[in-house]
Amino acid sequence: MCAIVGVFGNSKASKIASMALFAMQHRGQESTGISVSFENKIKTIKGRGLVDKIFNKNTLDKLNGDMAIGHNRYSTAGKDSILDAQPIFARYKLGEISIVHNGNLTNKNSVRDKLIEGGSIFHTDMDTENMIHLIAKSTQNKLQYRIEEALGTINGAYCFNILSRSKIFVIRDRYGIRPLSLGKLKDGGYIVASETCAFDLVDAQFVRDIEPGEMLIFTHKKSEPISIQLFKKDPHYCAFEYIYFARPDSLINGKNVYSIRQKLGTKLANIAHVEADMVVPVPDSGIPSALGYSKQSKIPFEMAIIRNHYIGRTFIEPTQEQRSQKVKMKLSTMKHLIEGKILIVVDDSIVRGTTSKSIINMLRMAGAKEIHFRVASPMIKFPCYYGIDTPKKDELICNQMSIDEIIKYLNVDSLAFLNIDDVKSSIGNENNYSLVSFDGNYFIKN
Amino acid sequence: MCAIVGVFGNSKASKIASMALFAMQHRGQESTGISVSFENKIKTIKGRGLVDKIFNKNTLDKLNGDMAIGHNRYSTAGKDSILDAQPIFARYKLGEISIVHNGNLTNKNSVRDKLIEGGSIFHTDMDTENMIHLIAKSTQNKLQYRIEEALGTINGAYCFNILSRSKIFVIRDRYGIRPLSLGKLKDGGYIVASETCAFDLVDAQFVRDIEPGEMLIFTHKKSEPISIQLFKKDPHYCAFEYIYFARPDSLINGKNVYSIRQKLGTKLANIAHVEADMVVPVPDSGIPSALGYSKQSKIPFEMAIIRNHYIGRTFIEPTQEQRSQKVKMKLSTMKHLIEGKILIVVDDSIVRGTTSKSIINMLRMAGAKEIHFRVASPMIKFPCYYGIDTPKKDELICNQMSIDEIIKYLNVDSLAFLNIDDVKSSIGNENNYSLVSFDGNYFIKN
Amino acid sequence: MCAIVGVFGNSKASKIASMALFAMQHRGQESTGISVSFENKIKTIKGRGLVDKIFNKNTLDKLNGDMAIGHNRYSTAGKDSILDAQPIFARYKLGEISIVHNGNLTNKNSVRDKLIEGGSIFHTDMDTENMIHLIAKSTQNKLQYRIEEALGTINGAYCFNILSRSKIFVIRDRYGIRPLSLGKLKDGGYIVASETCAFDLVDAQFVRDIEPGEMLIFTHKKSEPISIQLFKKDPHYCAFEYIYFARPDSLINGKNVYSIRQKLGTKLANIAHVEADMVVPVPDSGIPSALGYSKQSKIPFEMAIIRNHYIGRTFIEPTQEQRSQKVKMKLSTMKHLIEGKILIVVDDSIVRGTTSKSIINMLRMAGAKEIHFRVASPMIKFPCYYGIDTPKKDELICNQMSIDEIIKYLNVDSLAFLNIDDVKSSIGNENNYSLVSFDGNYFIKN
Amino acid sequence: MCAIVGVFGNSKASKIASMALFAMQHRGQESTGISVSFENKIKTIKGRGLVDKIFNKNTLDKLNGDMAIGHNRYSTAGKDSILDAQPIFARYKLGEISIVHNGNLTNKNSVRDKLIEGGSIFHTDMDTENMIHLIAKSTQNKLQYRIEEALGTINGAYCFNILSRSKIFVIRDRYGIRPLSLGKLKDGGYIVASETCAFDLVDAQFVRDIEPGEMLIFTHKKSEPISIQLFKKDPHYCAFEYIYFARPDSLINGKNVYSIRQKLGTKLANIAHVEADMVVPVPDSGIPSALGYSKQSKIPFEMAIIRNHYIGRTFIEPTQEQRSQKVKMKLSTMKHLIEGKILIVVDDSIVRGTTSKSIINMLRMAGAKEIHFRVASPMIKFPCYYGIDTPKKDELICNQMSIDEIIKYLNVDSLAFLNIDDVKSSIGNENNYSLVSFDGNYFIKN
Repeated sequence: MCAIVGVFGNSKASKIASMALFAMQHRGQESTGISVSFENKIKTIKGRGLVDKIFNKNTLDKLNGDMAIGHNRYSTAGKDSILDAQPIFARYKLGEISIVHNGNLTNKNSVRDKLIEGGSIFHTDMDTENMIHLIAKSTQNKLQYRIEEALGTINGAYCFNILSRSKIFVIRDRYGIRPLSLGKLKDGGYIVASETCAFDLVDAQFVRDIEPGEMLIFTHKKSEPISIQLFKKDPHYCAFEYIYFARPDSLINGKNVYSIRQKLGTKLANIAHVEADMVVPVPDSGIPSALGYSKQSKIPFEMAIIRNHYIGRTFIEPTQEQRSQKVKMKLSTMKHLIEGKILIVVDDSIVRGTTSKSIINMLRMAGAKEIHFRVASPMIKFPCYYGIDTPKKDELICNQMSIDEIIKYLNVDSLAFLNIDDVKSSIGNENNYSLVSFDGNYFIKN
Repeated sequence: MCAIVGVFGNSKASKIASMALFAMQHRGQESTGISVSFENKIKTIKGRGLVDKIFNKNTLDKLNGDMAIGHNRYSTAGKDSILDAQPIFARYKLGEISIVHNGNLTNKNSVRDKLIEGGSIFHTDMDTENMIHLIAKSTQNKLQYRIEEALGTINGAYCFNILSRSKIFVIRDRYGIRPLSLGKLKDGGYIVASETCAFDLVDAQFVRDIEPGEMLIFTHKKSEPISIQLFKKDPHYCAFEYIYFARPDSLINGKNVYSIRQKLGTKLANIAHVEADMVVPVPDSGIPSALGYSKQSKIPFEMAIIRNHYIGRTFIEPTQEQRSQKVKMKLSTMKHLIEGKILIVVDDSIVRGTTSKSIINMLRMAGAKEIHFRVASPMIKFPCYYGIDTPKKDELICNQMSIDEIIKYLNVDSLAFLNIDDVKSSIGNENNYSLVSFDGNYFIKN
Repeated sequence: MCAIVGVFGNSKASKIASMALFAMQHRGQESTGISVSFENKIKTIKGRGLVDKIFNKNTLDKLNGDMAIGHNRYSTAGKDSILDAQPIFARYKLGEISIVHNGNLTNKNSVRDKLIEGGSIFHTDMDTENMIHLIAKSTQNKLQYRIEEALGTINGAYCFNILSRSKIFVIRDRYGIRPLSLGKLKDGGYIVASETCAFDLVDAQFVRDIEPGEMLIFTHKKSEPISIQLFKKDPHYCAFEYIYFARPDSLINGKNVYSIRQKLGTKLANIAHVEADMVVPVPDSGIPSALGYSKQSKIPFEMAIIRNHYIGRTFIEPTQEQRSQKVKMKLSTMKHLIEGKILIVVDDSIVRGTTSKSIINMLRMAGAKEIHFRVASPMIKFPCYYGIDTPKKDELICNQMSIDEIIKYLNVDSLAFLNIDDVKSSIGNENNYSLVSFDGNYFIKN
Repeated sequence: MCAIVGVFGNSKASKIASMALFAMQHRGQESTGISVSFENKIKTIKGRGLVDKIFNKNTLDKLNGDMAIGHNRYSTAGKDSILDAQPIFARYKLGEISIVHNGNLTNKNSVRDKLIEGGSIFHTDMDTENMIHLIAKSTQNKLQYRIEEALGTINGAYCFNILSRSKIFVIRDRYGIRPLSLGKLKDGGYIVASETCAFDLVDAQFVRDIEPGEMLIFTHKKSEPISIQLFKKDPHYCAFEYIYFARPDSLINGKNVYSIRQKLGTKLANIAHVEADMVVPVPDSGIPSALGYSKQSKIPFEMAIIRNHYIGRTFIEPTQEQRSQKVKMKLSTMKHLIEGKILIVVDDSIVRGTTSKSIINMLRMAGAKEIHFRVASPMIKFPCYYGIDTPKKDELICNQMSIDEIIKYLNVDSLAFLNIDDVKSSIGNENNYSLVSFDGNYFIKN
């Protein structure tokens, strides 16, 4: 996942960047950072933890300047070093540079091997180091051409914000896999962010999405960003942004996430109807599709599962027998409402199946008579290598079990998923989505 | 507010108490603490912060024993000293004692003045010190009689858990203002907690409420707690527990909070119907009543206001002009859904009106055509002195303005509250509620 | 041990108090605190840790006012609760009060039992609570008379600074066991501190010691403190302040500590001469007496044992075999200087003997040919109950072993202590010292 | 300054390295780190703060393996990023590598410019990145040859410990400017450390110094390290290690620091005798030379200036008028001893003169009659670029003022420095010292 932001032409650049990162905290909680350029020097502050831990009046006051880029990093197992925090800063032939990246390069290893062969060194495992090395190695005499040359070498899903001493370069890959939008700040300048939900908090107006294959260059010489179509557009927008990742109040590729989730629920009601006493969402991401299901089926919507706002970083280590303790600390059930009732439980997706199993178990303990599980996405059978942290094939329950086996495993009375076509038609019936997790169609050649 | 817990007869007493306090974190976030009694010594760990910050394997391992009491403290302005954290421990004539308290003593000052007159000293401003002094001063030769004598002196809203070296005494005032329930632990022993939502997390079965005016004594000599009706029951259950405080999955005085909130919404739809495009709750506490309103009115329910899960401890100090920044960091609106629409916005209550004003403003910015504000409780015109931290009279908007003035102030198209009778009939049409915030009927003589 | 301070009549009272506590950090490192009185309210900040951790611009800015009292607490095993930090604040009949205490009440238990019998409660194990209760219980109508009445009840070693809303009361017990001195601040007002080394850092001039049995009252009504001789002077100044506790640059009872330590070393050279290559102090407290020994004996002084300035809170747990690891991390030896040499090693005292044994062992490993251990104090055979944290009788090596046995245990070639008369004559040949650790003459009747 | 350590062939390698770094804490307090190689993977833990903050059972348990390198970093103004902490890890063509460095490369900028020209990127300002790049860029097929090639490019003062997956390479520059010694661990394997004081704490026997221009290779294939003389020895041992840097119990280039400091004091007594009452060291580094002065002059040695063991991180910001507050918090004077006396004050060196001025002022306030300042080193007139963090020319008092002017500035009665020849003869009368700070003879061509 991850979130990136860029702010140009506003004297409160670092403050705006921090607010935008706060609004996109759901895309990454492990580490966060901001670079600014001021008086020809790039300055970076980054650290492990949430945005409001790393950034405060004190740290933001040190980040002067009217250009800033920033990043929220998603926690991935075992790689939690401070060295992995972005932005990544470096000095190279043309001066100073700082980069943030959202996505996943598919030819990362081969590019790195070639760079290492040529004498480069790598301090981390991150994609982003590749990009900096390619820029530094380029023989072009302008940063813009170096970036273009570097982009010619890499494949995969990427959105970059690159800060030099006087410019910001914004790039989105030709497939547009990860989202990236442009907004205009009310009190001057522009903002580029992974999700439009960042715009509302900083009083910015949504302008448009960065196009797949487009590069925007922000420079003081022009009042508007310069747009260059680097690659022929070949859109494969990530369907998972609509299903699970993005905040419901965001526009992703110009389409409202909340409405699409409702439509997914409506489809689900159409294809997998069942008589029941209530439709129950798994909060929070299951709420819009459950609402859609309820409206379509006329079965009452009830918040019979409650989410705890206090995270409870597993302060009591669960023993092996208390497997589902963690889920119980996060979610609780409305016993009084559920007892003796037939429930339709709606969740956005099933990955490993372990959390779903715990939830079903809690509902059974609360006295549910029947549980019909409805999933507002197709079966996830393949890992995604385009910027989503999905587990390996053999951990994906839908890859390992048939529907009947899953019904047994989860202990539900019935189970239904959406078809891939339902997803397409809910988003807009076009053929420009990345659906690799469902169809295994890895469209990027390595 | 605050939450208290007591666990008796289970070797994991402190662990169970900490889990229960975690489940009741919504009742108090300032400080938390647990006392245990083990081998005739009482041991206490307490501190400022959330339950999962203070309690972990390390601290809980130090709290051995099969009896524990615990407390979550609600933050009240200016009183954030570590000295205010409960339980309060003391040595007195009969040995060691530790006390937790939920509520508010109405004759606290006069009792304290008398105690001070008699040579007592006070280290804090808390009610709880009164109780310990009264117990210590009593000439009775048994703790039970001392407690009874002390209770004869104090008035107000209170629930006490008192830990001695071998017993736990549990007391609820004659009015039953603050809730207190008894549960049976699956693997042995009992739990007493402010809210039943604590029982689910620790695998306890709800047994019954502690009766108004009842004292329960837990002792190793008896397998069941001894019940003594100290005072004639005169129930005045706090209506605000149903309206706002309690978690929706709790039973308060045997009644499910979520269902009552839905009924409050249903009443609201009956008495203040208006044609609209959608019913929108102010999350999270407005959700059940908005659902009730939607079902009754057949107007679609939409989650058009979203709550941010990341608290953002105001990491950027809002300037005077950015008054509503804090609300914007906590809540965001579904512009796409709202634009050009007529909204019925449902909230649980209005206290000062400032947050409501910010929310309305956000909805206006998002393009709402009309906003009809519906409040699922009567007008709050009086401060509550029975354990709720309400502001002074002149800060209560309903005390200071007429409905028309409030409509103007909030910039809404219409505004409606419930009547006191609607609240009564929603909870159960009995006359045993404390409704002081609405009717100013202060039923306790000081 | 512990240190106390009081500042009166200076608008930077809390800042001055914190600096003084910093200068007296050697007397207590566990916790520290300061109370001020400002606009008729007493305010206290205290916490666990060193002075420069608890007090900074931020905390000191909250402590306004021209009167302050403060305390450094010495760590005593097992009692490390924040509740034990001083000052102790309380509200009582005449208003607000805050107390700091240095010393040890010998009839603490019987006083407490009587207070508890009379209905008082105790939150901690500290002496100081006794004093507050006695003041609160007194029927006198002025604080001064209440204090005097309270002092009539307690026995033992004590220095108190008592802060009311408009005065500071300073009291030293009739024996003058613990030191307490009066200084005049250059820029106005007075300071009272356990050691005069505090005066230098805050630009104060030493005026005189508080007399044994004296009470000083600081009030805005008089420019000078009022002196009242409460008890007949019966001086028993603690000899250990000269031998070990006090900083060498302090005047204790008007006498310079460094000079006295040198004299102790001179005596030692006279009574226990031996031919050797060098005199080696155990740093830091053994340095002055080693210098005295060297001058008297004409044997060269060498810093052959070096003290590490980095504490190394035992970051690597020593296994059983690495018993002396802790000493090795604190001290190291000058192998090159020691090898093949005859050493006279001078330390200030021997308590348990374990540290001495480790030091001797290190010197042996470094190649010392002979080691003659010289102790600049008599044999410690009795625990002190007058404010020093000495171990129990059976842990005192000089109580358990003969000189010959100690020689064997420590593995030294010879060993000598001072006589009690040597100590007396070094300090001043008067008969007004507390020497209980050496002679077991417990002069205070309980 | 900085300190480095390498441990090879001992299963407790990281623990031993941490103990050695603790013993060398005086050479660098800003950050510390350790890399180990285990099962063909290099693992690094580093952080800002003292050794005992970063390393504990928990962190050391994660650093398995029988090879480790470590580093203490000296704080240099403005460069306190976590990125500057060493060891520096990188992946390059031959695999993984981690480097620690003590010293200063004189052609660092030109080497970096060339590397950047060739497409390399730099994340920090540190010398060490140069070395890694040079190794990575080399076309040699073995790490050893790559290191040798890289060393052919750099000039300056350096000691490197380079950890690969199976070896440790240890290099000292041809001048031997910074010290580096080899020790044999009692329970197996070797240790290499900047100072021999590290050996005592880890039970290692001093073997010999690494020779100037020598490379040692530790590999499992040989029981002894392989020695290669890379460069012709051209010794210029840093004289400042003897004068100020090293711990007195260390052997630097085989010579004991404490003894040399005494000799420097002896010379000082010979060339700048004056009648006085006492010789007073500025603690701690002035103690040995003051002892030497005292012995030679027969004037008594007195510890009339005391050093505070509690650092007091300037917890109270000194106003402009309280310039010397910081010095007063660190040092205090023995007024009683000093009053009316003629003092010879001995310090190891004078750099800016500001601290000396504050000390003199304190002694004047304490009543000193005359103060004769004696400096146990020559006048520092030139900055050192060989690994010592000296200020610029115009901040060096001896570069800016004549002796008479300094006497006036410091307010002393007389002032004397050593001659360069005194230093040489005290260390050993050879011509193999780096004395650039005194004579400006920058012997390394850039």
